[in-house]
Amino acid sequence: MRVMGVDPGLTRCGLGAVDGRPGAPLTLVAVGVVRTGADEELGARLVGIEAGIERWLDDVRPDAVAVERVFSQHNVRTVMGTAQAAGIAVLCAARRGLPVALHTPSEVKAAITGSGTADKKQIGAMVTRLLRLSEMPKPADAADALALAICHVWRGGAQHRLAAALAKARGKDLKP
Amino acid sequence: MRVMGVDPGLTRCGLGAVDGRPGAPLTLVAVGVVRTGADEELGARLVGIEAGIERWLDDVRPDAVAVERVFSQHNVRTVMGTAQAAGIAVLCAARRGLPVALHTPSEVKAAITGSGTADKKQIGAMVTRLLRLSEMPKPADAADALALAICHVWRGGAQHRLAAALAKARGKDLKP
Repeated sequence: MRVMGVDPGLTRCGLGAVDGRPGAPLTLVAVGVVRTGADEELGARLVGIEAGIERWLDDVRPDAVAVERVFSQHNVRTVMGTAQAAGIAVLCAARRGLPVALHTPSEVKAAITGSGTADKKQIGAMVTRLLRLSEMPKPADAADALALAICHVWRGGAQHRLAAALAKARGKDLKP
Repeated sequence: MRVMGVDPGLTRCGLGAVDGRPGAPLTLVAVGVVRTGADEELGARLVGIEAGIERWLDDVRPDAVAVERVFSQHNVRTVMGTAQAAGIAVLCAARRGLPVALHTPSEVKAAITGSGTADKKQIGAMVTRLLRLSEMPKPADAADALALAICHVWRGGAQHRLAAALAKARGKDLKP
């Protein structure tokens, strides 16, 4: 299963793809960031993020996309842009009919390090070890995107099936 | 000048277009909402919002798009979806090269009613009067989208030129 992780942001949107399945070694496919300028208008930045993610989806051809779930408790100054970049990642994946999962930062940390409160350095170290890389992927947004993808390989499949079943059950309850 | 206003939301995204220029009577072009189901997955909802806005842009052919600026102080439960719907409206407009302006709710209220703290009913009443309609547009999201478009006709042009000049000046300061 090939998963592309997205650590959303307007200034740096981290992207990382891995091949893997639960219980087997993981392989790095690609890692990087899409950047947009803080002096650009919001519209131009969102168009840049969309174009970057589309290019990645064309190149990487993932089976699923994992996006960090953004909370409004985050840095208030940047949270709206982060939410909008995340929305565009979800939109791009959904337009292609790809399954999309949202994982919270603490779900990712717990999956990768065993602790929901691990710091960025610990995440980077575990991503480097799990993918048998010679050095830590940089910047941190790129490492975080790989952590999201690994988290999804390990827990995403089951979570996605659960969410679909819950949505179906909710739909049944709501309809007469 | 034809302006399309967007009152962003996942459940109901208000859309309204008017023709006008400062100091002249306004004309209603179109008003309505794009709806997505609360039981749908986020990806499907964002694809639905994008398709609805694209259809409107094709039909209405606006010269500019005005979107409500979303703050994280809003209802925490829905603010992320609102920010993502707003991001998609900005993206759709920017992809077509249309100028996009963001207006805050209090800017819109002040422009339409003279008071930044006017309630929904007062906004609806003024929109109805300014566009010489026989009844108030419903739901409130549709009336709010028209209020955004009217606000932009009256103050948007000048604001857009100011923002562009400021961005240019900022860019100059930052570069060596």
